Amino acid sequence: MDFLKPDTVLDLANIRDALVRMEDTIIFNFIERSQYFQNSSVYEINKYPIPNFDGSFLDWTLCELEKVHSQVRRYESPDEVPFFPDEILPPLLPSINYPKILASYSSDVNINELIKKNYIENIVPLISAGNGEQPENLGSCTTCDIDNLQALSRRIHFGKFVAEAKFQNERAKYTKLIQDKDIEGIEEAITNSAVEEKILQRLIAKGEVYGIDPTLKFTQNVQSKVSPEYLAKIYKDWVIPLTKKVEVDYLLRRLEDD
Amino acid sequence: MDFLKPDTVLDLANIRDALVRMEDTIIFNFIERSQYFQNSSVYEINKYPIPNFDGSFLDWTLCELEKVHSQVRRYESPDEVPFFPDEILPPLLPSINYPKILASYSSDVNINELIKKNYIENIVPLISAGNGEQPENLGSCTTCDIDNLQALSRRIHFGKFVAEAKFQNERAKYTKLIQDKDIEGIEEAITNSAVEEKILQRLIAKGEVYGIDPTLKFTQNVQSKVSPEYLAKIYKDWVIPLTKKVEVDYLLRRLEDD
Repeated sequence: MDFLKPDTVLDLANIRDALVRMEDTIIFNFIERSQYFQNSSVYEINKYPIPNFDGSFLDWTLCELEKVHSQVRRYESPDEVPFFPDEILPPLLPSINYPKILASYSSDVNINELIKKNYIENIVPLISAGNGEQPENLGSCTTCDIDNLQALSRRIHFGKFVAEAKFQNERAKYTKLIQDKDIEGIEEAITNSAVEEKILQRLIAKGEVYGIDPTLKFTQNVQSKVSPEYLAKIYKDWVIPLTKKVEVDYLLRRLEDD
Repeated sequence: MDFLKPDTVLDLANIRDALVRMEDTIIFNFIERSQYFQNSSVYEINKYPIPNFDGSFLDWTLCELEKVHSQVRRYESPDEVPFFPDEILPPLLPSINYPKILASYSSDVNINELIKKNYIENIVPLISAGNGEQPENLGSCTTCDIDNLQALSRRIHFGKFVAEAKFQNERAKYTKLIQDKDIEGIEEAITNSAVEEKILQRLIAKGEVYGIDPTLKFTQNVQSKVSPEYLAKIYKDWVIPLTKKVEVDYLLRRLEDD
């Protein structure tokens, strides 16, 4: 997949390979997060007094990081979506001039707030080392959270490429569904239950292998890891439904761009 | 290991467990970097014109990131060492007040410049997807480089805790060696060849498991990964020797602090 060559990005086989590879990144990142307790205080709005900032410790750190990353062109890339689109800065380097791959409104399809909410409320409790706070680990823990949020956001917003590819492959069918504002019909058209089942099986297989130090496999050592069943649950309950939401949101406006 | 409880940090068994766990982080990060080409332009000084900055694209991004992380107390932690100690900012949050674990000069023992040089010249060629440049990936690639550098820096500077623990365990022996400025003798005292051999074997075992998607193991798919032999080589030729350099540098000044 090469974002300078639209055909390679809208090839469903390439999209699939990219999504499979992203699972590894997400699992690796979750395993890193599993070294730390829940540390919920980092998600509490204005829990820590930060001058000139209204939000949580996580929000401040993520926003500052996005300012740095935006200056090295992160958010020019069509597969990167900022959590703080109003705060990011112009790139310091000359623009890449990516060819048009997605519809012109595609950057408006941004469900990062919803991803963050689901991550904090539902995912963190499943991947952290347990309830509780370790004040000296708030920074490390937040860094892991940011890696997780960015990886999840990229994975979920990849739904835009899936949607665009499906639209181009079956233009007449989707045009009708969109004209009819048939959300249920669109959801049905983009759903492939067999593929979803395969994703969940693959996550369990990967979780079993990546989550255990192979050299400690037969010892008594307790290892910090993420349960393979939780990985499957996280995809089933949040990652896959949120990706579909991105696809539907994107498709519902698709006729604006023709 | 709890940095608020010095005894747990200077326990060699706990140090060993922490170092073993860090291998996973380093391998995961290397695997992420292996998705990208070498992209050497990001390491070239002033290759990209960045206003008010003298250095490489990597340097700028790393320095800006350290400014953010310093404000959330990263460099207060005794196991974190900045690459730009003159540029970091004071924390926004109240200080943690860590108990004294290391000697008072310990933050002067900072070989990050040397780690960065070795990383760019020797490690990147072994872990990247090949020679060449992908202009649209410079940012992603740099983000991986920063993760790698921070993980390597933490691992290598953990030598300070190893050195302090060994000094406290055999105070008379090390005092004599330090008084004699017997660098070779110190190197010999801190070296355990059997442990080093075990590290290399463990890296190969982990590389073989973490580096291959288990669900694609028996297919023809080419996978982005890092060779297990290279992982062992990187530890043997750079990580272990640089850790020893930290230990020696730390020990040579140890009597200043008594």
